[in-house]
Amino acid sequence: MDIISIIEKKKNRLTLNESEIDFALNGYLEGSIPDYQMSALLMAIWFNGMNYQEINKLTMSMAKSGEIIDLSSIPGIKVDKHSTGGVGDKTTIALIPMVAAAGVPVPKISGRALGHTGGTVDKLESIANFKTDLTVENFISSVKKINASIIGSTINIAPADHKIYALRDVTGTINSIPLMASSIMSKKIAGGADALVLNVTVGEGAFLNNFEDAISLGEIMVNIGKSNHKKTYAVISSMEQPLGYAVGNSLEVQEALELLNNKGPSDLKEICLFLGSYMLMAAGIVNKQKDGIKLLKKIIANGSALTKFMEIVDNQKGNVNQIREPKLLPRAKYKKDINSPFRGFVKKVEARIIGQSTMLLGAGRMKKGDDIDLSVGIVLRKKIGDWVNEKEPLATVYYNDKKKYDLIKDSILKAFHTTDKRPEGKPLILKVIS
Amino acid sequence: MDIISIIEKKKNRLTLNESEIDFALNGYLEGSIPDYQMSALLMAIWFNGMNYQEINKLTMSMAKSGEIIDLSSIPGIKVDKHSTGGVGDKTTIALIPMVAAAGVPVPKISGRALGHTGGTVDKLESIANFKTDLTVENFISSVKKINASIIGSTINIAPADHKIYALRDVTGTINSIPLMASSIMSKKIAGGADALVLNVTVGEGAFLNNFEDAISLGEIMVNIGKSNHKKTYAVISSMEQPLGYAVGNSLEVQEALELLNNKGPSDLKEICLFLGSYMLMAAGIVNKQKDGIKLLKKIIANGSALTKFMEIVDNQKGNVNQIREPKLLPRAKYKKDINSPFRGFVKKVEARIIGQSTMLLGAGRMKKGDDIDLSVGIVLRKKIGDWVNEKEPLATVYYNDKKKYDLIKDSILKAFHTTDKRPEGKPLILKVIS
Repeated sequence: MDIISIIEKKKNRLTLNESEIDFALNGYLEGSIPDYQMSALLMAIWFNGMNYQEINKLTMSMAKSGEIIDLSSIPGIKVDKHSTGGVGDKTTIALIPMVAAAGVPVPKISGRALGHTGGTVDKLESIANFKTDLTVENFISSVKKINASIIGSTINIAPADHKIYALRDVTGTINSIPLMASSIMSKKIAGGADALVLNVTVGEGAFLNNFEDAISLGEIMVNIGKSNHKKTYAVISSMEQPLGYAVGNSLEVQEALELLNNKGPSDLKEICLFLGSYMLMAAGIVNKQKDGIKLLKKIIANGSALTKFMEIVDNQKGNVNQIREPKLLPRAKYKKDINSPFRGFVKKVEARIIGQSTMLLGAGRMKKGDDIDLSVGIVLRKKIGDWVNEKEPLATVYYNDKKKYDLIKDSILKAFHTTDKRPEGKPLILKVIS
Repeated sequence: MDIISIIEKKKNRLTLNESEIDFALNGYLEGSIPDYQMSALLMAIWFNGMNYQEINKLTMSMAKSGEIIDLSSIPGIKVDKHSTGGVGDKTTIALIPMVAAAGVPVPKISGRALGHTGGTVDKLESIANFKTDLTVENFISSVKKINASIIGSTINIAPADHKIYALRDVTGTINSIPLMASSIMSKKIAGGADALVLNVTVGEGAFLNNFEDAISLGEIMVNIGKSNHKKTYAVISSMEQPLGYAVGNSLEVQEALELLNNKGPSDLKEICLFLGSYMLMAAGIVNKQKDGIKLLKKIIANGSALTKFMEIVDNQKGNVNQIREPKLLPRAKYKKDINSPFRGFVKKVEARIIGQSTMLLGAGRMKKGDDIDLSVGIVLRKKIGDWVNEKEPLATVYYNDKKKYDLIKDSILKAFHTTDKRPEGKPLILKVIS
């Protein structure tokens, strides 16, 4: 068996068998197969796909490449959550404390920035000293103690996926259903939770652009979850425009904090309440979804979600003062408004352009291992349905490097489209697969 | 501009413009774009192709990434030759001395092993001390002095292609018409010859499997050649089974020497005479193809082609004794016959299996920079149309490592297919494009 033949096989639309998938993964993990051969294989998979058996095998191989965390010492039904991500998706940061405060044990393993979207781990690192690389023992004891811990998948959780994920990020191989499904589910299986709520985002700002692909990804993941005896829900939601207003690491943490302070953008609140209600049902805390939403609203309103977030931050050595006073989070040196040259109702905000511009400001990675600027980003001032007057700001750019600002300012304008008639509202939540 | 967007663009079937092609090539050459991003781009090109403008641009960019050799100080019409390669293709080694002995100045730039096929430079290194890394000055003065020099493209000739070629070899991205065309033509343009004879091989043992692809590649290359004011011929030939009998570096040198000694396999002789006659026409030495073939036959018969090869070897510091006594070339420690379990006419010899098995014996590279074992290989004992009795040898394997022999012995048997009826002979030369 050799890796070139495996690449050729996938390139020629043949099915890879179990031992070929293992050979490729193990060789890549131990270093005998270099990055450039894995990226060629990933691109061939991007083009030719994988069948369910291949995806399932890839998932299990990646899950087993590291430790499968045993959470059985934690009482109750442990519920994990995942989002396929999107521009401005800071859901995890607000949702985890909400649900944990409602009594669900949440062992959350998160990712880093991917392509034009940010990653929860990078965002949380905006909080000074926040440790996302806890040991498994600390991770478990944290969930036991305060019902929640959020860590990066950097330790021994699905290390094969970890290495491949970083490579996909910089080789244009992110938006592949088999690669997305196996990446997510390998980490979720290794993470050891009893139940999963998966948010599959679809639209311009997500990695999948059409609804059928989103359903297909959701169904594959729910099947893999079930065959591993985990109650699994996939919630398909729209990501046509950025979620909320803020895009960029510390800016998004600030917006998530607004929600925990019972303010914040309505779309962010809606998706958090919806996903949270399914997590509560999965954990057996409520029987009906609407009871879950009611409970979560109360938990936000009475401040216990915010208190829970402070507990999480404190437990992971982060600076709680920055949560109390978000002004203390990393701030870019400069900010500038992008003013509208036209008037009308906003009918479209091209999320991908906003995401890519944020990346070009320094908030994402162009190459594996690149540093990230936590303070830069873009805050929208108008979203779909809003009226904008001439010279009124469409967005505010937070930056540290004038050259980078100059590079992106024109494209931000291009991201906004207006119309004379107020556009019809579209639903945020599209479908639930279970 | 960034490389991920360029990968995405090609992945999404869009056309790359001049500055994007330059950005990718220059970045890769200087190291700011790593192997793994280039291999993802190459795989996307493999799937989605390139139009003629893209190919031409890529060719010229790669040619200009290094020196364009100025051969104007050499009198006469300088003719270069190239083959897209195939299993057992030792044409260059026999052809160049034949043509040079007939009076054509031949500045030949050759490649190394690629995929399941060998490379002329590796093969020539079977001859002790044979230098393929001459300086451009030595290369030119050699052609002036003895009408021929064969060097590797390792110096400053199309360095961007050089780096990409090595990467394609190990990432399953060889058999791509735009990548083959631009690779070959960039080196030929940088090589500076006035006329080109290109052998495009098609069939199981080559990189292209169908005749239409071969014609397409031939036409693109002839067009690029012409637009650079070079008389260019593309000769399409069949490579269903290995060319000649020997496959493996020093074994192939020995077989080429047989031809120069006026013996050798008939198919090898046929293709050498055919390509050679076009080189003679291109150089203006003969007007009619049949006169070229007649002249070359005479040159082989009277020993002047062999003498010319000794001159070439001597001029490039190789050990001429090994040419006089081919037994002195590197020899594997062990050899073993693969005997036939069946009887009948051979109707098929799967060249790709023979090529891959030879590679697995150590004669090719699995990864960039791997060492090659020059002595190992396979010598066919039967070819298409031959009768084989039970227990009669189909092939002889030359090897140094019993484990590697064990690994491949069964597949060699699988490469041979027999039938009761004598199969019809098929032509070797399929078409000439000019």
